Amino acid sequence: MASTTPMKLALFSILTLLYFQAVISLTPLHEHPLDPLTKEEFLTVQTLVHNKYHTSKNKVAFHYIGLDDPDKDYISKYEHEKVPIVIHRKSFVIAIINGQSHEIVIDIRLKTIVSDNVHKGYGFPMLSLEEQGLVTKLPLKYPPFIASLKKRGLNLSEVVCAPFSMGWFGEEESKRTVRVDCFMKENTVNFFVRPISGLTMVADLGLMKIVEYHDREVEVVPTAENTEYKASKQRPPFGPKQHSLASHQPQGPGFLINGHSVSWANWKFHIGFDVRAGIIISLASIYDLEKHKSRRVLYKGYISELFVPYQDPTEEFYFKTFFDAGEYGFGRSTVSLIPNRDCPPHSHFIDTYIHSVDGTPSLLKNAICVFEQYGSIMWRHTETSIPNEFIEESRTEVNLIVRTVVTVGNYDNVLDWEFKTSGSIKPSIALSGILEIKATNIKHNDEIKGELYGKLVSANSIGIYHDHFYIYYLDFDIDGAENSFEKTNLKTVRITDGSSKRKSYWTTETQTAKTESDAKITIGSAPAELVVINSNKKTAVGNHIGYRLIPAIPAHSLLTEDDYPQIRGAFTNYNVWVTPYNRTEKWAGGLYVDHSRGDDTLAVWTKQNRDIVNKDIVMWHVVGIHHVPTQEDFPIMPLLSTSFELRPTNFFERNPVLKTLSPGDVVWHGCPKSN
Amino acid sequence: MASTTPMKLALFSILTLLYFQAVISLTPLHEHPLDPLTKEEFLTVQTLVHNKYHTSKNKVAFHYIGLDDPDKDYISKYEHEKVPIVIHRKSFVIAIINGQSHEIVIDIRLKTIVSDNVHKGYGFPMLSLEEQGLVTKLPLKYPPFIASLKKRGLNLSEVVCAPFSMGWFGEEESKRTVRVDCFMKENTVNFFVRPISGLTMVADLGLMKIVEYHDREVEVVPTAENTEYKASKQRPPFGPKQHSLASHQPQGPGFLINGHSVSWANWKFHIGFDVRAGIIISLASIYDLEKHKSRRVLYKGYISELFVPYQDPTEEFYFKTFFDAGEYGFGRSTVSLIPNRDCPPHSHFIDTYIHSVDGTPSLLKNAICVFEQYGSIMWRHTETSIPNEFIEESRTEVNLIVRTVVTVGNYDNVLDWEFKTSGSIKPSIALSGILEIKATNIKHNDEIKGELYGKLVSANSIGIYHDHFYIYYLDFDIDGAENSFEKTNLKTVRITDGSSKRKSYWTTETQTAKTESDAKITIGSAPAELVVINSNKKTAVGNHIGYRLIPAIPAHSLLTEDDYPQIRGAFTNYNVWVTPYNRTEKWAGGLYVDHSRGDDTLAVWTKQNRDIVNKDIVMWHVVGIHHVPTQEDFPIMPLLSTSFELRPTNFFERNPVLKTLSPGDVVWHGCPKSN
Repeated sequence: MASTTPMKLALFSILTLLYFQAVISLTPLHEHPLDPLTKEEFLTVQTLVHNKYHTSKNKVAFHYIGLDDPDKDYISKYEHEKVPIVIHRKSFVIAIINGQSHEIVIDIRLKTIVSDNVHKGYGFPMLSLEEQGLVTKLPLKYPPFIASLKKRGLNLSEVVCAPFSMGWFGEEESKRTVRVDCFMKENTVNFFVRPISGLTMVADLGLMKIVEYHDREVEVVPTAENTEYKASKQRPPFGPKQHSLASHQPQGPGFLINGHSVSWANWKFHIGFDVRAGIIISLASIYDLEKHKSRRVLYKGYISELFVPYQDPTEEFYFKTFFDAGEYGFGRSTVSLIPNRDCPPHSHFIDTYIHSVDGTPSLLKNAICVFEQYGSIMWRHTETSIPNEFIEESRTEVNLIVRTVVTVGNYDNVLDWEFKTSGSIKPSIALSGILEIKATNIKHNDEIKGELYGKLVSANSIGIYHDHFYIYYLDFDIDGAENSFEKTNLKTVRITDGSSKRKSYWTTETQTAKTESDAKITIGSAPAELVVINSNKKTAVGNHIGYRLIPAIPAHSLLTEDDYPQIRGAFTNYNVWVTPYNRTEKWAGGLYVDHSRGDDTLAVWTKQNRDIVNKDIVMWHVVGIHHVPTQEDFPIMPLLSTSFELRPTNFFERNPVLKTLSPGDVVWHGCPKSN
Repeated sequence: MASTTPMKLALFSILTLLYFQAVISLTPLHEHPLDPLTKEEFLTVQTLVHNKYHTSKNKVAFHYIGLDDPDKDYISKYEHEKVPIVIHRKSFVIAIINGQSHEIVIDIRLKTIVSDNVHKGYGFPMLSLEEQGLVTKLPLKYPPFIASLKKRGLNLSEVVCAPFSMGWFGEEESKRTVRVDCFMKENTVNFFVRPISGLTMVADLGLMKIVEYHDREVEVVPTAENTEYKASKQRPPFGPKQHSLASHQPQGPGFLINGHSVSWANWKFHIGFDVRAGIIISLASIYDLEKHKSRRVLYKGYISELFVPYQDPTEEFYFKTFFDAGEYGFGRSTVSLIPNRDCPPHSHFIDTYIHSVDGTPSLLKNAICVFEQYGSIMWRHTETSIPNEFIEESRTEVNLIVRTVVTVGNYDNVLDWEFKTSGSIKPSIALSGILEIKATNIKHNDEIKGELYGKLVSANSIGIYHDHFYIYYLDFDIDGAENSFEKTNLKTVRITDGSSKRKSYWTTETQTAKTESDAKITIGSAPAELVVINSNKKTAVGNHIGYRLIPAIPAHSLLTEDDYPQIRGAFTNYNVWVTPYNRTEKWAGGLYVDHSRGDDTLAVWTKQNRDIVNKDIVMWHVVGIHHVPTQEDFPIMPLLSTSFELRPTNFFERNPVLKTLSPGDVVWHGCPKSN
């Protein structure tokens, strides 16, 4: 979940002031139609919307400003035309004006508003950072809360509050409300592990006031002892000690970055960025040495949603069923990467812009890093069976990694896209940051009577059970847009006719998913190969070309299907879904997720049971982690990671790195001593 | 599966000659009681056994010479005594003498034979390299085979043969026989993809002659075109190109290796090596900064067996159900690592000795490498919610990797043990090398009628379906030998009493496995945390200290339980097993696996259903890959990898790397130009 960012807020205010005083060039500056909006483009959008809607009575609150993706046809034309074509740039905006969510499409080049649609359905757009900042100040001046602090003997000046999305639990009417929880930062920056429990505080973001307050019970605030994680605040002994290790690339990096377009080894792709999706990988193509051309694999890939349901049904936690992308924004929550820490020294960093609630863009430095990393072995073989010949061949593997970190409040998500020259793409997610802690008077397991809904991770501190379900949007375009989805089941065959000394073996049975229903897959129920193929193209021996999904151990949502959070997060009902491409179906939890009712989710769309044979299809893949907290996760959690692999499967005629030579040896002997 | 090694054979012969002419020092030279046998110790064993059993009629064939592990009590004493104690060194030998398998225990220090037991049960010991070498020469002088070649128009001088273990398919009597398959090396070193199909050839290793031969049918031998993998034989264009990347460690490596004992960051462990098991990790302990002591995690870990059943029941392939450790030996099949290719330039290499069939040790250079590698992030957090404070903390992660490569014939297994300062151990396996190919007259999928038992990966070449099931032996000693195994199930609870706005949540239910039956786990059937705990020790808040298994996506054997290969490989019936420690239970497929009948497997031992509560217990974990071959696997396969994590779970009071500082920055600017 997300929290306030007063620093960013201050920066926005200054930038906003500057904007209204300065003369701004509105010339778009970009190189690729999928580039994120530039500073100038944000400002154009801001001006156009302001000019049309802003009055002293009606303030415009920009909750989302993003690129309105060009059609796939247009991108195809852009890629294949030799002469430069006019780059269309449109923006899609969700702004709250006079209490209504407006969906505004803007033609940036023509500086016109193309359309404006008022959202009539359920749910609200992503929270802005500014309202998150403002709402967390409310308790500090709210007398009942101050009284509660006094009752507990807590110091108001050491209180930090954070907003928590509330979900939907069957209420008929929904308002833009958040729960506000407060914490003690006394003697630690790690306030998340020092919650002030027993309070229910609801704030209305529209009114920007506290609309509900209960002081239910008093639990002790966990101590600050052993919670600090800042290096500068630690006392010796330090350890364990690590020796420095850095990569040395005498030929320089193997990649070339032109704006947002990356070329590396046999791969080319585009890195986009969106305030909601965060990083977006587009147009990933791999050069085929035999076919002498670059071949498309992935039109677009990004994390569409992250559902984090906590498993405590009590008043303190029941609502904590977060949708981190749809409620807080993966892009909005992307943090600046720390050079030499979050990314190795030889990394290339990419900055981006994110917009404030008034539409002003501000620079996010080091939002993305790109670097090469020694992998393992690419392929190898030692052959000793040929008389008078000893053969040993092994190729060094260097991989390319594109990394962002999304910190939604307490949790830090390290999100990598790894590319391999052998054709694999390995997206990985890793969790770090801080657990959501519930305070308890209990100091030892022996005192527990009844259900804690979590584990005691420190005295007075319960790490509440929860899950992390990431859903990846993977628009494969395997050598063209028209693809199909094949499920190849591995099936035991029993031999009863005495034809073999064996009694059994397994074989494969391939089914092409005809419709969306056929493609709803629960991984792990039976062994199967899941492959996106281009059924219009075959290899020389007649295999369909494709890419397969090699998943991590799957995690399935354990909530009942009729539970409200599960209705909203119904995209976790399966691990894999396939839909026909539809440009409006981007967000697996819906376009408006805050207080959503689950009427615009992947689970609902797929009820149409559309045809997915030889169509432009999108695979959706849920990667999940059930999290039973342990003491090692406290006070800050070492990375817990998982990944999956998208691996070429008869995409190439043969091993595509057969003719790769290992790069030259680099042995570091130190520098020669100068005289 | 394994094949001949004439090169090694030649080396052995020379060494053997030298041995009989030279005066050899028999003083044992070792530093740790778990060190692999030294050259001198091998020679002592050889001499003692030779002296007692060798006659001109009775030749001694050493099929296994290894360290006879000291008792755990002895090791404990060794570790804790301040004054040096006498290092007992014993060897366990399996030698075939006069057609019988003798199990001989030798006290190396006292130079005496302690015991000699003749194996009466089923099964034979591992094949020696020498007999593998000899048997593959037989066809070349066997007239019926020469006639078959002539019939096919194949050139005898281009033929390479390889021995294949035959398993057991219900025969009443078993002899030490192997199937011999032959291949064409004409125009390629990649003979494995050019099988001469349609022949059944059985050789008796005792008689060293062909005892069965059928020329069943003629299939075309697949062409050599596009099969070569040697860099020196490739023709342009080469690619994709990679830039050099090497690690630079200005402070030198962070590890210290003393003989076979490794210290690195907070870890200490011992690296052993055995001709059957290959690499063995022992005595892995981690330093606890708070408790000011090193704490034991793993007493011993190694791969106990690798079961590779092919899924083709026809005469050509039905018997191919290999047990690579028990039949061929993981240590015997370990290959020399190629510096700068298999391991990065800053690696430390460890050599070892393997013995020949006459007992002579020969040096295997670079059997093991140890290196540090940049990982990802150790832990991080960016905090923007505290007014006037901006906090970003991130720790660089450097991991330690111990690697070996085991090449059993066509397949190369890259076997890593990764250690993390945060307490995790991540064993990983990766496959490379060459597919087992079945020849077919079919050149295109359109020609297929009926079952191929695999996929066409090139014209005339079927990559047969198969599995790779590795079983790890993991003798945890979590802070002491007495441990228990806990299974914590995640269970949905439905709320029906209106006590919450939620309708459901999940909670945990922990069961301690009382006996071996309770600990037979099929991973993936229901979500669960699998933890080895020390129930005698608790953290300050009362959690049992432990380590949990985070598995990869599991693979289950799809053979029927009554099928002969499955009876022999019954350790794949579950993904996790737990047994009470028993020093004779080392090999999940049995001590004698060649032609075994499954009467000495993990599945049989656990039928005793022994008590495993608060005992010295061993966890066995099966890691599996179902392999549906693809064209990318041909002619040589890019690494396909999987791994699991052993992660501290309330083992520490809190994050054990909280007080780790990132190592100093190293930014490579090149060397200063000398004048």
